[in-house]
Amino acid sequence: MKSSSMVRILGQSHSLLNQFMAEIRDADIQQDSLRFRYNLERIGEIFAYEISKELAYEQEEVVTSLGIANVPVLTHYPVLATILRAGLPFHQGFLKFFDRSANAFISAYRMAHKDGSFSMSIEYASSTPIDGKVLIICDTMMASGSSMVYTYKELLTRGKPAHVHLATILASMEGLNQLKKSLPKKNVTIWVGDVDDELTAQLFLVPGLGDAGDLAYGEKD
Amino acid sequence: MKSSSMVRILGQSHSLLNQFMAEIRDADIQQDSLRFRYNLERIGEIFAYEISKELAYEQEEVVTSLGIANVPVLTHYPVLATILRAGLPFHQGFLKFFDRSANAFISAYRMAHKDGSFSMSIEYASSTPIDGKVLIICDTMMASGSSMVYTYKELLTRGKPAHVHLATILASMEGLNQLKKSLPKKNVTIWVGDVDDELTAQLFLVPGLGDAGDLAYGEKD
Amino acid sequence: MKSSSMVRILGQSHSLLNQFMAEIRDADIQQDSLRFRYNLERIGEIFAYEISKELAYEQEEVVTSLGIANVPVLTHYPVLATILRAGLPFHQGFLKFFDRSANAFISAYRMAHKDGSFSMSIEYASSTPIDGKVLIICDTMMASGSSMVYTYKELLTRGKPAHVHLATILASMEGLNQLKKSLPKKNVTIWVGDVDDELTAQLFLVPGLGDAGDLAYGEKD
Amino acid sequence: MKSSSMVRILGQSHSLLNQFMAEIRDADIQQDSLRFRYNLERIGEIFAYEISKELAYEQEEVVTSLGIANVPVLTHYPVLATILRAGLPFHQGFLKFFDRSANAFISAYRMAHKDGSFSMSIEYASSTPIDGKVLIICDTMMASGSSMVYTYKELLTRGKPAHVHLATILASMEGLNQLKKSLPKKNVTIWVGDVDDELTAQLFLVPGLGDAGDLAYGEKD
Repeated sequence: MKSSSMVRILGQSHSLLNQFMAEIRDADIQQDSLRFRYNLERIGEIFAYEISKELAYEQEEVVTSLGIANVPVLTHYPVLATILRAGLPFHQGFLKFFDRSANAFISAYRMAHKDGSFSMSIEYASSTPIDGKVLIICDTMMASGSSMVYTYKELLTRGKPAHVHLATILASMEGLNQLKKSLPKKNVTIWVGDVDDELTAQLFLVPGLGDAGDLAYGEKD
Repeated sequence: MKSSSMVRILGQSHSLLNQFMAEIRDADIQQDSLRFRYNLERIGEIFAYEISKELAYEQEEVVTSLGIANVPVLTHYPVLATILRAGLPFHQGFLKFFDRSANAFISAYRMAHKDGSFSMSIEYASSTPIDGKVLIICDTMMASGSSMVYTYKELLTRGKPAHVHLATILASMEGLNQLKKSLPKKNVTIWVGDVDDELTAQLFLVPGLGDAGDLAYGEKD
Repeated sequence: MKSSSMVRILGQSHSLLNQFMAEIRDADIQQDSLRFRYNLERIGEIFAYEISKELAYEQEEVVTSLGIANVPVLTHYPVLATILRAGLPFHQGFLKFFDRSANAFISAYRMAHKDGSFSMSIEYASSTPIDGKVLIICDTMMASGSSMVYTYKELLTRGKPAHVHLATILASMEGLNQLKKSLPKKNVTIWVGDVDDELTAQLFLVPGLGDAGDLAYGEKD
Repeated sequence: MKSSSMVRILGQSHSLLNQFMAEIRDADIQQDSLRFRYNLERIGEIFAYEISKELAYEQEEVVTSLGIANVPVLTHYPVLATILRAGLPFHQGFLKFFDRSANAFISAYRMAHKDGSFSMSIEYASSTPIDGKVLIICDTMMASGSSMVYTYKELLTRGKPAHVHLATILASMEGLNQLKKSLPKKNVTIWVGDVDDELTAQLFLVPGLGDAGDLAYGEKD
C-alpha cells in the first residue's frame, strides 16, 4: 500500500523490526511467552525510537568531567498511553526508552448488540494530564480500529494534546482505513509495523498472530 | 511485631530487599522513576523467589548434551494477579521470574460516601482461570487492606484456587490486621516487605513512600 | 552430600533456582541462547540475593515524602569479580542486584603440558581495589576448580579482602573438593547451585550442561 | 563535519539517541552507574537497529495460528565483537537486539615506550568464526583509534568477513580520521554517535564523558 502523509509503515523498509514481527507471528516461537513479550517490548523500543525522530529537541549545556558539551536533548517527554491488557508489553518497550514519561492506561469495552451493531464504553481509565503534551497511544494490534478511535476520543475529552501518535504493531487494512477516516489529518500521525489484508467477522487479522493478550498473559476465564 | 503463622515479613531478616525498600522510600532516589520502577521489579523478583520456596516441585529427567539429569522443577506455575495501576511494576518482577505463568489484572474502585463509609467495586477484571491453581495477588502497597480483600473475594467468585499468596511490599499495621481478620487462615499466606505503624485518614502510610502509582507512572489528571 | 560449614548448596532446598537450573541443562531449551543467558542472569540475581543475607547492614534514616523511616541498608557493596567469557551472564545477574558494586574481570588460561600436567596463567585482569572489601568471585561452572582457585589467588595478590564468596552454578564434586582443600576455611564461603558427580578427562561435567561459554556466546574459532 | 560515504554519524539527526548520549556525558547523571550502563545498552540497541537496516533479508513463510505470512527475516545474524572492558555494556545492547548472534571478546593492550611511541598487543581474544560473516566491532569510545584498528586487524587474521561495521558512541575527530585512513574503503562502514574535536595527550576526549570503563565498572586498582 502507499503511505499517506499521516501514516508511517515501519516494516516497509527492512530492519530488525521485521525479524521481531516475524517471531511474534510464528505459531511455534510464540509458545515461549517470555520471548513473545520480549519481542513486543523490543518492537516498542523501535517504535519509540522512530517516533522520537519527529519530536522537538533543544540544545543543552551538559557539564562533563572534562568540559562542557552543547548537545540536543528532548524538549518534552511524550505521554505514553496504552490499552489494556494486550498493549502492556508494547507499552513497556516505549517506557524503557521514554523512561521519564508519564503514562495513561485505558480499558475500552466492546459490547455487541443483538442487531449486529456494537457500542464501546470505558471500563478503566487512569491518565496523567495530556493538555499541550505530545501523546502516544500504543496498542499491540488493531482490528476494526474502534478501540483505538474510542480511546483517542476518550483521552481528548480530558485535554488537548499538541500532537497524537497512534502506534500499532499489526493492523488490518480495514482498521487502518477506519483510523484514517475517523481521525483529524492535523496533529495526528499513525505508526504501523505491518498491515494484514484480511479481517474475520470475529475481528481476527489473517494471517495475523492470534490473540496478543492471551499469548502474553494467558487465556481468559 | 510477631509473625503469625500465616504472615511472612521478608524485611525482618536483612538482605538486598532492605536496600531496595530503602531506595523506594527515599524522596530523592524515587525522583528517578526508571530506578523506582526497577526497584519494584527487583523486589517482585525477590518475593517471587521467596514464595517459590513454598511451591510444589517434582523430579524430572532432563536430557543434557552429555547425559540425563534428574532434577526438581515446578509442578505448576502459579497465576499472577495484580491490582492496577500501582501493582504493575511489582507484577512485572514476578513475571520475570515466573515467566510461564498466566495472569490476572484487576482494578478495584473505592467510592467514599457522605456518611464516611465507602464501598468498593470492580472497574476492570481480566483473569485467566484460577480454579485449582496457586494464586499470587500482588500489590505494591496496602493501606486499609480493603482493595486487597475485595480483589481476593472478586477473584474467588471465579474459581477456587488451591492456595492464595497475598504479596505487598509495604503494608500498614492496620491493613495487615484487616487482612488477617478478613481472610481464611487456611490456604492463605500473606507476604509483606515492611510494616508501617501509621495510616493517615487519607490512607497514606507514614513514613511510607508516597503514592506508588504516581511515582511509577506520573500524576493523574 | 553433606554441606560443610563453608559450603552452601542452594539447590538442595527447592525454589525457582531449580527450575532455572533445569532449563540451562536442557539440551532443547538451551538452543535459545537468549533464554540461556537470561536464565544465567536470573540465577545470578538469586545467588546475589542469598549472599546478601550474609552481608553487613546498618540503620539509616531515610527521608520519605511523609516522614522519616529508619531502615537497614547495605553497609558496603561487595566487589563482583568474574571469569571470562562464560562467567559474564552470571555476573550480569549479580550486577543487576548489586548495581552499585565495582567489578573485576579475569581471564585465566590453562595450558596443558606434554606430560599430562598443566599450568595456569592470567591473560587479562582488570580489577577494582579489593583491599578490605567483601569480594564475590562468580563463574558459571566449575570443573576441576583450578580456574577458580587460580583466580582467587591472583586477586589476593592485589589486596586482602575482608571476606570472599566463591559462587558457581554447577560444580563437579571433584572441583568442589579441590576448592575446599585449596582455600582457607576462614573468611571464605563457597556457594553452589548443584553438584554433578562425574567429571570427564576433558573436564566436562556429567550430566552437566555442555559448554556454557559456547551456549551463551557461540562456538569459538 | 561532512560524512564521507563510509561514515554514518547517527547523532546528526535528532532522536532519543541524543538524549541518551547527553545523559552519559552528564557528570551528575553518570554517578548512577546503573543508569550509565543502561544508557550504553539502549544506545547499543539503537546502533544495532540502525545497522540492521543495511543487512540482508529474505522472505520467509511463517505459519501463524490463522494462516501463512510471507515476511522478511534476517538472512544471517552478524557476529558481535567488543573490546574489554568498556565495550561490554554497549555490546550487551547489541546482543539484546541481535539475540541469536555469536560473539567475540577482545582485549587490546597499549604499551607506551620511553621514546613516546607505543605498541599494541592482544591480551585476550575469544572469537567465534568470522569467515564470510558480517562482523560488527563495537566499543564505547574511540580516542586515537588505535585499539579499534588493532582489533580489526587481529580479527581479520582469523578470517575474511563479508563486511565489517565498526561502531563507537563517542569518537574523537582524530580517531575518526585515523580509522578512515587505516581501514579499507570497501566492505567497511563506520558508525559513530557523536564526534568530539579535542583529544588530550592522555587520550581523553574533550568534552567527552570521562573513563567509560570506570563509570560502568568502577575504578581500577
